Amino acid sequence: MEKINSLQNVHVKAWKKLQTKKGRKQQSLYLLDGWHLVNEAVKAHVSIKTLLITEKQLASQPDLTKFPAVIEISDEVANHISATVTPQGVFALAQLPKVDDDPLANLDLSRPWLLLDNVQDPGNIGTMVRTADAAGFAGVAFGTGTVDIHQPKVERSMQGSQFHLQLISTDLTALVARLHAENLPVYGSELNPEAAQYLDIDAPASFGLIMGNEGNGMSAELLAQTDKNLYIPIKGRAESLNVAIAAGILMFGLYR
Amino acid sequence: MEKINSLQNVHVKAWKKLQTKKGRKQQSLYLLDGWHLVNEAVKAHVSIKTLLITEKQLASQPDLTKFPAVIEISDEVANHISATVTPQGVFALAQLPKVDDDPLANLDLSRPWLLLDNVQDPGNIGTMVRTADAAGFAGVAFGTGTVDIHQPKVERSMQGSQFHLQLISTDLTALVARLHAENLPVYGSELNPEAAQYLDIDAPASFGLIMGNEGNGMSAELLAQTDKNLYIPIKGRAESLNVAIAAGILMFGLYR
Repeated sequence: MEKINSLQNVHVKAWKKLQTKKGRKQQSLYLLDGWHLVNEAVKAHVSIKTLLITEKQLASQPDLTKFPAVIEISDEVANHISATVTPQGVFALAQLPKVDDDPLANLDLSRPWLLLDNVQDPGNIGTMVRTADAAGFAGVAFGTGTVDIHQPKVERSMQGSQFHLQLISTDLTALVARLHAENLPVYGSELNPEAAQYLDIDAPASFGLIMGNEGNGMSAELLAQTDKNLYIPIKGRAESLNVAIAAGILMFGLYR
Repeated sequence: MEKINSLQNVHVKAWKKLQTKKGRKQQSLYLLDGWHLVNEAVKAHVSIKTLLITEKQLASQPDLTKFPAVIEISDEVANHISATVTPQGVFALAQLPKVDDDPLANLDLSRPWLLLDNVQDPGNIGTMVRTADAAGFAGVAFGTGTVDIHQPKVERSMQGSQFHLQLISTDLTALVARLHAENLPVYGSELNPEAAQYLDIDAPASFGLIMGNEGNGMSAELLAQTDKNLYIPIKGRAESLNVAIAAGILMFGLYR
């Protein structure tokens, strides 16, 4: 088995660059960090090019026959390429899905979609994808300005749900138009006086729900294209809800 | 104005110790980090002993007359005593509330309570307190094993909601008994076959809701004391919901 111990190694430098969108695009790869994600990816038939594994993880004698290539790495290399403070010591280099000419082709529109407009926190994004999975949504659309699907911290916090539903990167205006073309309503979630209480809505079997930026909410342009704008009534003195909490309440409240 | 620049200063060493429960108890103080929390504490009439402020923050000429003492600190000191990576440069040393002989005295039981059983992540705890505030709950009880109320990361992620509702540290068994003595039901949230769907429950105007540990759920002992155990139906393939998301769905679903 090939062993790589040095941070100066040309491969290590390339792997480190997978933390950036540019690096992922140039190499057509992304990084999955930890056994849970790697195993979920294998189950989901994600194309894995190489497994990277530390001596300590090798000692537990995992079944490595399912990986086309395996490279042993030092703890130092593992710490260097990981976006987490205490990586487990196992990584998969996975093939970046090729970008469709039309990201809106082949969408399952029989169930609801969550649309993320300029959401910035990887933990919030991952939690929303995981919650959308649990709520039975068909997919999550990452709008322009939202952190990239394959950013390592986003991948980690999705905890495997990225393999359970459709994830696309798209201009949200185009997706809203597509949902409207199918006669499906699109709901916004901007706090404003004209918003409707979410419990008063009788949502159909499929719809779009847009969550906006943590500090600034949804873009005005997108808000203008929604059919209804929803609010969650706040009884106490909190100024707002965390965006992932609001998304959870709305997804489970609208789609039962 | 007194200035403290050195990490070797005896006061700086004491402030750093406010990150630990022992340090807070010994000094009867806790740390509030950032203007938002400091201002919310002032509004809530929290007893602030001293304001610590960097030169850069002083330059914005804030009104400091409301603080009994002000000390200028260097950026290095600010970075050292903060639990965040990029502190704003303003801190309040607040008086730790004296521990009641009976934490269950003077509780507002006219509205619901959230009970945290061995919850470990400061971000989850803070988000749940903020969500409980928004949902109109009366208070949050931090059970034995749950991270301390005044831990700096917990304080930060509560974002001011700590001043809007009652927060107590208590043995949860005692609080459950107290709720039962008032004829109020207590709901668990452990995934098990005997659980009831949360939407099938007609919750009264006040009740207790227990959320358990991120990995292990609620303690069996506490679960045995609940009136009903609730579950959120999972439609997709996610194995579970994040504890703060589940708490948000349950709090807003049960208390409308």
